[in-house]
Amino acid sequence: MSPSRLDFQLEAQATGSRARAATFRTLHSTVRTPLFMPVGTQATVKAQLPETLHESGSQILLANTYHLLLRPGPEVFKKMGGIHKFMQWPGSVLTDSGGYQIFSLPHSRSMTEAGAVFQSYVDGQRILLSPELSIQTQMAIGSDIMMVLDQCIPSTADEKAARKALQVTQRWAARSLAAREDSPQSMFAIVQGALYPHLRRESAEGLMQMSFDGFAIGGLAVGEEKAEREDTCELTACLLPADRPRYLMGVGTPLDVLEAVHRGVDMFDCIIPTQVAKRGSVFTSRGVIQLRRTVYKFSEDRLDPDCTCPVCAKYTRAYLHHLTKTQEPLGWQLMGQHNIHFYHQLMREIRQSILEDRFLKLYHEKRQILQVEDIDHPVTTVKPPVISPDHAQRVGDYELSVTPGQPARIFHITTGQAVSTDAATPQWNEEVPLAQHLRLPADVPAEEATPLILWDIGLGAGAAAIAAILTYEAEAEKAPLRPLHIVSLTNDLSALRLALSHKRHFPYLRHGAADTLLHRGTWTSRYKPGLTWTLLQGPLGETLSQAPAPPELTLHQPLPGMELPRASNERDLPSPGL
Amino acid sequence: MSPSRLDFQLEAQATGSRARAATFRTLHSTVRTPLFMPVGTQATVKAQLPETLHESGSQILLANTYHLLLRPGPEVFKKMGGIHKFMQWPGSVLTDSGGYQIFSLPHSRSMTEAGAVFQSYVDGQRILLSPELSIQTQMAIGSDIMMVLDQCIPSTADEKAARKALQVTQRWAARSLAAREDSPQSMFAIVQGALYPHLRRESAEGLMQMSFDGFAIGGLAVGEEKAEREDTCELTACLLPADRPRYLMGVGTPLDVLEAVHRGVDMFDCIIPTQVAKRGSVFTSRGVIQLRRTVYKFSEDRLDPDCTCPVCAKYTRAYLHHLTKTQEPLGWQLMGQHNIHFYHQLMREIRQSILEDRFLKLYHEKRQILQVEDIDHPVTTVKPPVISPDHAQRVGDYELSVTPGQPARIFHITTGQAVSTDAATPQWNEEVPLAQHLRLPADVPAEEATPLILWDIGLGAGAAAIAAILTYEAEAEKAPLRPLHIVSLTNDLSALRLALSHKRHFPYLRHGAADTLLHRGTWTSRYKPGLTWTLLQGPLGETLSQAPAPPELTLHQPLPGMELPRASNERDLPSPGL
Repeated sequence: MSPSRLDFQLEAQATGSRARAATFRTLHSTVRTPLFMPVGTQATVKAQLPETLHESGSQILLANTYHLLLRPGPEVFKKMGGIHKFMQWPGSVLTDSGGYQIFSLPHSRSMTEAGAVFQSYVDGQRILLSPELSIQTQMAIGSDIMMVLDQCIPSTADEKAARKALQVTQRWAARSLAAREDSPQSMFAIVQGALYPHLRRESAEGLMQMSFDGFAIGGLAVGEEKAEREDTCELTACLLPADRPRYLMGVGTPLDVLEAVHRGVDMFDCIIPTQVAKRGSVFTSRGVIQLRRTVYKFSEDRLDPDCTCPVCAKYTRAYLHHLTKTQEPLGWQLMGQHNIHFYHQLMREIRQSILEDRFLKLYHEKRQILQVEDIDHPVTTVKPPVISPDHAQRVGDYELSVTPGQPARIFHITTGQAVSTDAATPQWNEEVPLAQHLRLPADVPAEEATPLILWDIGLGAGAAAIAAILTYEAEAEKAPLRPLHIVSLTNDLSALRLALSHKRHFPYLRHGAADTLLHRGTWTSRYKPGLTWTLLQGPLGETLSQAPAPPELTLHQPLPGMELPRASNERDLPSPGL
Repeated sequence: MSPSRLDFQLEAQATGSRARAATFRTLHSTVRTPLFMPVGTQATVKAQLPETLHESGSQILLANTYHLLLRPGPEVFKKMGGIHKFMQWPGSVLTDSGGYQIFSLPHSRSMTEAGAVFQSYVDGQRILLSPELSIQTQMAIGSDIMMVLDQCIPSTADEKAARKALQVTQRWAARSLAAREDSPQSMFAIVQGALYPHLRRESAEGLMQMSFDGFAIGGLAVGEEKAEREDTCELTACLLPADRPRYLMGVGTPLDVLEAVHRGVDMFDCIIPTQVAKRGSVFTSRGVIQLRRTVYKFSEDRLDPDCTCPVCAKYTRAYLHHLTKTQEPLGWQLMGQHNIHFYHQLMREIRQSILEDRFLKLYHEKRQILQVEDIDHPVTTVKPPVISPDHAQRVGDYELSVTPGQPARIFHITTGQAVSTDAATPQWNEEVPLAQHLRLPADVPAEEATPLILWDIGLGAGAAAIAAILTYEAEAEKAPLRPLHIVSLTNDLSALRLALSHKRHFPYLRHGAADTLLHRGTWTSRYKPGLTWTLLQGPLGETLSQAPAPPELTLHQPLPGMELPRASNERDLPSPGL
């Protein structure tokens, strides 16, 4: 291999561990490893100012080529003098290649040796993302470190698919390198090979024949077990040259990062610190805190007594609890800032311990604390919601009506309208378009399929959601399907509670999903893990913003009180499923 | 009147204008007028850090008693030592009384001499907001300036209603003052009287009998014309004592503020600077800029060449355009910060000009610039979207089908499903629950009614939305109604465009609303100004977050491609409108 453009200097290697500390120099800064890179997908880290990122110790930000190619587009970066100037970021930038997105986002279309064709979510245009286009875009963005375009597959792929992907990745890596031409930007290759040690070796050895400035471990954190990930990570890291940075892509929690450092990895990126901040989850030296919990409502404590970040210096848990409950953007900003600081502080402590050769001790201590919830305020068992006794004929504004010889029904008392309660009859399941939606696109294995997000607005007595579940379960017997994520949004569980307390009248509720949903807020099929059902309770205006988006299907199940009539010619429409 | 607790010092009075400059001292700071108060409804100004607010010159923040009463609740403020400590705000705080919210938010229920009963959006509890509870809550919050609970009515109310409201406000003002007991917090009274000069006088004179530390002009910016507002503002300001601050509540744009300073007002609050920032509207010395416009995509210019705020010092219009297009929270933060700075800078210039007795000149200059859009990049006439010529039988994935003797229909080509196109037949309009929703609650005049927000998800060929419009127009002939705001969310206008190019087949489209909607993105009834129709075009995941929320009614009008069947027992349901 030719010398790295990064002037990588290994400074220390821990005893009894593969952890190591190093420095290297990018076009914009000197960086110290191990390091964590906050994710700035669209040339901005969610709700974070560049100056606070810099002050908290961010050295490199990750930006997404796929998103930036579509918006604002490479021409803007060319005009504006690159991403650093565009977003006013004084540190370094690493751009991914778009490989991960085209294989995981819902706009992917087809894959050939030339590249991947996908449809732009901005203007609908069909775009061929080739290794050349990816690198040209990354050159326009002007990142310090570019990634080769790779073919990312699930870590659980079979050997044949895994070999095929790594071979394509190999050829694309060579094309990526050629496309760089005389750019001074560094470039990392990506080792693939799923969970097969011999394929990982084959991939690493092939890539090491070329002049890359660093190597990434790709294809992990996409479906495998934690132990499998750690083993494969360690194996792959060992295969890589000692004089180049090693980067584990898309990983992970603070604990994941610690484990991977121990296994010889230098660089990490993950959206977790900003993503979980939006729902009020905060990493602290006393475990993970869920700020929505009422236990913090009156708390004058700082987020983390051991943290030196500006948020911990200034704000109480009570205020951050309030910002979480009110979903104020200031909360995302402050808690994201703290979480990023937490990651960087962890990396600094890790690095210092490696330099002083006491990493192994730190590793064992941190491992404990990084996997607990708030140790000062442990979560006690959640009480199940009160279900009315079986003889209750009313819950909230809903009433049960039983007429002998006819199916029982549930009425909304105020409006007198009936709630749907037999959507789950078998004939419903046979002709529905849902089954079509669930079909896998040609050439896409189930593991690579994008989940179908189905919004069930209203919930009602759960009949429509259960119908979707039964459909899924029936169809899945015939062929592999895309994952299905049902999200029910409702302000009122009364109709479902009433139905559940009279299950003998509503046979579709013998399916246990609704019970679990009410008790836990979420249900996952034991047999089809891609099938999930989540409850978001609250005013629609609030829950919509929490729901995974965009939905591919929206099932409107209005509560009678909010129903508007359908168009009058609906009787003329083909009635699917009737 | 007893001496003001605020130690109000009039410093200068402009020549040829009623504009004045003063200082007064709150419990937390000395403030200089004229001043603008950013709105921190929930103890946080949207996406703004306290330190940047302070640095930009914010002297007083406004917080909303109604919201803070419900969440986090007065007990939290008591425990945490008041709002300043809670939100880490070093300046002063003014709390409104909740009067405006209970008369304008959708949870209001009934109003008596005792107070207003409303239902909590947090836990559904019924709460009597009396003058005493409002003041006790404001004391718990610990604001520097409290507002009396007032009865806010539309400025266009008739004389009888206006007199009744001001008399109630008068009695509630006395009760508010008594409820303060020995608190050192200041208290402002609120002058009501709609647009009737003699009622404004009656209200002001009554309130001036009591020992208030300042006076607000209430009941403006709630329905009247600009000239009416300015006249009433000037008249009321003249009635008020010269040695107390005058506060025009909820006003307004920079131009509104300038006009009111000229008429003798000292204090203002408005959500505009942060609210418009979210959609990329920015105030500059060269007019208002809409950053979503493509003209800024490559612009290396600063937002405002004459602005000294940190955002203008650092970022280009191109980057802020990008943050607007991607709806990144950093954009709301940065543009909100700039807008707030713009307001404060305007107030500082105004104040300086008053102190130097050249306000009138400044007033005439500023008046010009504050009412224009970007003068360097004027908006050219918007081209109407291309409507297919009448003979086109297809638009996008939709096809027209005409069978002699039958109503024409529009089909989704891919799925073969028909789009609803005759929802507007007269019988549809007679039995619908929509009419019930539109009825005014007992004792609520039309002007005080909360608008009904109707989400029309999907749009289709516009039939359902037009049906709602026709229903409104028909019902409005019989009785006054609540306002109706229809919001259509869609990714695809093809079906509507196709129908519009074949109007003779689709008589409901003779109603001009759909044409206007397509050309302008919004339609307002000329005869019933409360009736509006707005188009939000884009993926549902994006448009939902832009739609006014929460919707009271949601009409799901799925495009055939995204339709899920209704529950199978829908045939058993009463079918309203058929």
